Amino acid sequence: MLYSVNLLQGGSTGKAFFQLLSMNDSLLIPAEEMKEVFLSILLKYQFEKERAETCGAVYTENSIDGVYTHGVNRFVSFIQLVEKEFIFPNNEPELIHASNALEQWDGKLAPGVLNAIKSTDRAVQLAKQNGIGCVALANTNHWMRGGYYGWRAAKNNCVFIGWTNTIANMPAWGAVDARLGNNPLVISIPYGEEAIVLDMAASQFSYGALELAKMRNKELPVDGGFDKEGQLTKNPAAIIESQRVLPVGYWKGAGLSLLLDILSAVLSSGLSTHEISKKKDEFALSQVFIAIDLQQLKNYKGIEACIHNIVSDYKHSIAAEGKEILYPGERVLKSRERNLMNGIPVIKSVWERIETFL
Amino acid sequence: MLYSVNLLQGGSTGKAFFQLLSMNDSLLIPAEEMKEVFLSILLKYQFEKERAETCGAVYTENSIDGVYTHGVNRFVSFIQLVEKEFIFPNNEPELIHASNALEQWDGKLAPGVLNAIKSTDRAVQLAKQNGIGCVALANTNHWMRGGYYGWRAAKNNCVFIGWTNTIANMPAWGAVDARLGNNPLVISIPYGEEAIVLDMAASQFSYGALELAKMRNKELPVDGGFDKEGQLTKNPAAIIESQRVLPVGYWKGAGLSLLLDILSAVLSSGLSTHEISKKKDEFALSQVFIAIDLQQLKNYKGIEACIHNIVSDYKHSIAAEGKEILYPGERVLKSRERNLMNGIPVIKSVWERIETFL
Repeated sequence: MLYSVNLLQGGSTGKAFFQLLSMNDSLLIPAEEMKEVFLSILLKYQFEKERAETCGAVYTENSIDGVYTHGVNRFVSFIQLVEKEFIFPNNEPELIHASNALEQWDGKLAPGVLNAIKSTDRAVQLAKQNGIGCVALANTNHWMRGGYYGWRAAKNNCVFIGWTNTIANMPAWGAVDARLGNNPLVISIPYGEEAIVLDMAASQFSYGALELAKMRNKELPVDGGFDKEGQLTKNPAAIIESQRVLPVGYWKGAGLSLLLDILSAVLSSGLSTHEISKKKDEFALSQVFIAIDLQQLKNYKGIEACIHNIVSDYKHSIAAEGKEILYPGERVLKSRERNLMNGIPVIKSVWERIETFL
Repeated sequence: MLYSVNLLQGGSTGKAFFQLLSMNDSLLIPAEEMKEVFLSILLKYQFEKERAETCGAVYTENSIDGVYTHGVNRFVSFIQLVEKEFIFPNNEPELIHASNALEQWDGKLAPGVLNAIKSTDRAVQLAKQNGIGCVALANTNHWMRGGYYGWRAAKNNCVFIGWTNTIANMPAWGAVDARLGNNPLVISIPYGEEAIVLDMAASQFSYGALELAKMRNKELPVDGGFDKEGQLTKNPAAIIESQRVLPVGYWKGAGLSLLLDILSAVLSSGLSTHEISKKKDEFALSQVFIAIDLQQLKNYKGIEACIHNIVSDYKHSIAAEGKEILYPGERVLKSRERNLMNGIPVIKSVWERIETFL
């Protein structure tokens, strides 16, 4: 028996390309149980109660939404970074510099999720005061699923544009060695009670996706990188061997990644990808959070109809055989519904490992 | 004899893939002469003097910078839109609604270049007052080369993030018919006396690039779309036949395009791609201009060194055989130097056609 879900899918690729785990490999964990387990572990690691609750809830919500790579599958490595003292559970970000709608914060190496929530909320607040607001955050940690902050800003009637830099994991266009991050970019807008959320890394596939395809002995659906001979390939093992993952749109995604890294470092006065990559692990990242308040637009009341008309036209596309036309974030809603009803599918070994931390 | 330039290259693809015109096909026009010719024609079409000068200068500068598709090659169709009264030479954009750092403007169907300059400068001004500023512009026309506004904001020490929607020219992911625009996105930051400028359409290749490759009987360097059978292909003729161009990064670029269109239409209260596509020609576009003032950052004095270090690390990439590692916008500087020295290479028939408007 197979689940029609992809346990290692990250981001909102619009398509669960990678196939299916057998029932024997995995468990269905109710969301409440997952949250409780995370909470217990975080409390054990000295997170203050409210911080533990929020953090545990976000790791759970990301899993409910089907982004397991940045939820349940990443929880152990998060705890390990706390153990190594690369993440400080109860540190609070500090305002370094303010210039009206533009602020620079030092994340003090607090948990990335908590810093990113605070920065999103602050950008929203600045947008409520100024129409548009920007928070640049240095010295933070992995925000897990960038889309989370897009959904969050949307709940406050804001457009969200945000990104993070990462450790070097992707070559420049024409290069052999990885000097760029895959620097995810998030763009979102409220849509009805929910949101349309693009959560897009600058590499075509994550290493997680490549590893899974390799494990399953599957080709990628499209070219995902170069082999050792410098030929484009769909073979995940060859790409893992060469470490030459493909930027989104070849030269275009490489350029996008460079710009996002420069902006992250400059605006936050934080570290850039090449500096982060000298560290022992991926921490002390730089991020940018921009919010625009829709309620301050002249056409506020017409916005929902405007988006509805665009989405409706988009959905009327003639689909190629066997294809479904989805907007960014739409698959998330389906995962959410299914996982809340059936429980969250978790790889058995992943859950067993988490339980050792209890 | 061959020029090592690509006369139809658009955007900053980082690589002039398409080959070379023979000397017999083309002329070298000095920049001053080009500007004078454009000015004369624009004055003949009733542009007020200062507006004619600015417009002519931008079409010339885009050509000097090597973006011929959005300079000299586009001049005739610009004039034809004026003739059809889809563009009104002397209209001025009007402020519709202001909310501190966020403004909505009506472009009044004035020339796209002039509207975009005004909007860029206004976003910069708002950034100088508020740290960050945003202008959303409805009812405007094609801004030609988006990168121009990135370079312009950089001269004022601002980061620039901007985009435009377009007529439908790219299918959604999984779709057969074109309902998305290729909605170029521009991100830039000052770098020394110049700038690093990403100017990236959401399709892998423009129709101009496809036409040229077809004309030359050349394969594309990477997949550029689908053929009639729905197979990915490098064959430009097959893509032109199917009209199924490939989004940058497959599903990712399609998602990016949708979000940029929604944001353009919502923020400006202007038309979206599906509405523009009902018109007889591509006009009444919606655009967004965001500027962030670097001079207001605590680390302003350290920014140049920060960018220099990032670019220096990037440039130290190990290049694959025969490859050069360039940052976005770097090729522009080379084109600029060469074209200012030698004259601007123009396809003979293009220049002859322009002269008929004198």
